[in-house]
Amino acid sequence: MAENVSLEEFLGTAVDAAKKAGEVIRKGFYQTKHIEHKGQVDLVTETDKACEDLIFNYLKDHYPSHKFIGEETTAAFGHTELTDEPTWIVDPLDGTTNFVHGFPFVCVSIGLTIGKVPTVGVVYNPIIDELFTGIRGKGAFLNGRPIKVSSQDELLKSLLVSEVGTKRDKSTVDATTDRINRLLLKVRSIRMSGSCALNLCGVACGRIDLFFETGFGGPWDVAAGAVIVTEAGGLVFDPSGNDFDITSQRVAASNPVVKDAFVEALGM
Amino acid sequence: MAENVSLEEFLGTAVDAAKKAGEVIRKGFYQTKHIEHKGQVDLVTETDKACEDLIFNYLKDHYPSHKFIGEETTAAFGHTELTDEPTWIVDPLDGTTNFVHGFPFVCVSIGLTIGKVPTVGVVYNPIIDELFTGIRGKGAFLNGRPIKVSSQDELLKSLLVSEVGTKRDKSTVDATTDRINRLLLKVRSIRMSGSCALNLCGVACGRIDLFFETGFGGPWDVAAGAVIVTEAGGLVFDPSGNDFDITSQRVAASNPVVKDAFVEALGM
Repeated sequence: MAENVSLEEFLGTAVDAAKKAGEVIRKGFYQTKHIEHKGQVDLVTETDKACEDLIFNYLKDHYPSHKFIGEETTAAFGHTELTDEPTWIVDPLDGTTNFVHGFPFVCVSIGLTIGKVPTVGVVYNPIIDELFTGIRGKGAFLNGRPIKVSSQDELLKSLLVSEVGTKRDKSTVDATTDRINRLLLKVRSIRMSGSCALNLCGVACGRIDLFFETGFGGPWDVAAGAVIVTEAGGLVFDPSGNDFDITSQRVAASNPVVKDAFVEALGM
Repeated sequence: MAENVSLEEFLGTAVDAAKKAGEVIRKGFYQTKHIEHKGQVDLVTETDKACEDLIFNYLKDHYPSHKFIGEETTAAFGHTELTDEPTWIVDPLDGTTNFVHGFPFVCVSIGLTIGKVPTVGVVYNPIIDELFTGIRGKGAFLNGRPIKVSSQDELLKSLLVSEVGTKRDKSTVDATTDRINRLLLKVRSIRMSGSCALNLCGVACGRIDLFFETGFGGPWDVAAGAVIVTEAGGLVFDPSGNDFDITSQRVAASNPVVKDAFVEALGM
């Protein structure tokens, strides 16, 4: 019981942090942005950095003994080991390319792992004001209303979301489009939103039946979404069908009914 | 002057019709839907039909002498010739697959052609409450604020939106993914929203730099968006670079600076 109270308190704190960061994102979204380049598509903005500072400072004030892993700090200081300690895994601005271009699929993603298991998740899109939340064992919610994955049981009627990633060498691009080619003959259609965390939440609330992505940035893209999908009755797994590994930069998600057909179609 | 007053009155009437239809769409979006199938991905819903009736009746009450072309009536009664007469071209629900799945890129699209030229356009997404409007010679607006296309002049930094269409024969799917493959090496990234009309509006407001699509449903997908892009300072053209033909089921759009590079990259 004490643990559950604690988890709800963690969630409340994470929601507060996400809303504060969301305000910064919303303001920046409509302004001209100063962009630094980390490569062709990997853009970092001032907003990204400001939001990570804001979220980390807020969470550290509340939980000074916890561990922290964030996209920006990892980029600056290198790999951070995920331990069994309570660890906040934060993407202050998922969908950075969307943010730079003004495409409204951007979000804050804040996940908490305990014993390496995603346990609390908050994904907040401040542009269309959608707040996805989940606590292990306590359900998943969109703006406070319970959500669940779709009940779609036919692959051919399933809507897939995926991404083309940021790598542009020929073999990666060929593998990406070959896979899309094969999948198009097996699913209804495909969407690309540009936000890994929001794609997971799309599966969680049943807007999307299938999601997979490889080669994304790191655990901060999936830590929060993984709890939310699981608590919405969905499955998060490796695209091969094996167990999900939060550190592997490979993720897939669907409802339980269509998973096996999806994994077979992916052929990964 | 009289003509301008008229065009603004036409726009006002179209906005009223779009808002009324938008209410119906918004209600249906969150409900279980009764779906009929016109093929694997071409779904028609009760909402689609109800909205076309609502919009046509409303516009016919105001402009009984005008001509009307709509997706549903065309599907039911066959091809309708586009003449020089003032003609309302209506997609009551663009993004039907999104609607069925609950993916929030759906809209009402209402265009008016005079002398076959798109002259008034309204595209309304009732889920995220975005109203795009345009009148030939009078600018384009999002929720009443002026919009303009991006100023991006480098293809490699441009965000592309496109769709995989609804045809699933092998040669169409191969052509689609081959084109995505080639384009991925030349642009920043790709998005797929599932709504042709909203893709055009994405270019108009600068969220998206580049858009092309072939094989979409008909002129109702592009009639409104074409005015809005043009009035936002953009270009609407055939993917070959030739003049746009509203009846051709081929469309591309971008800002004027990047057009030539885009057409060359498309190679169509």
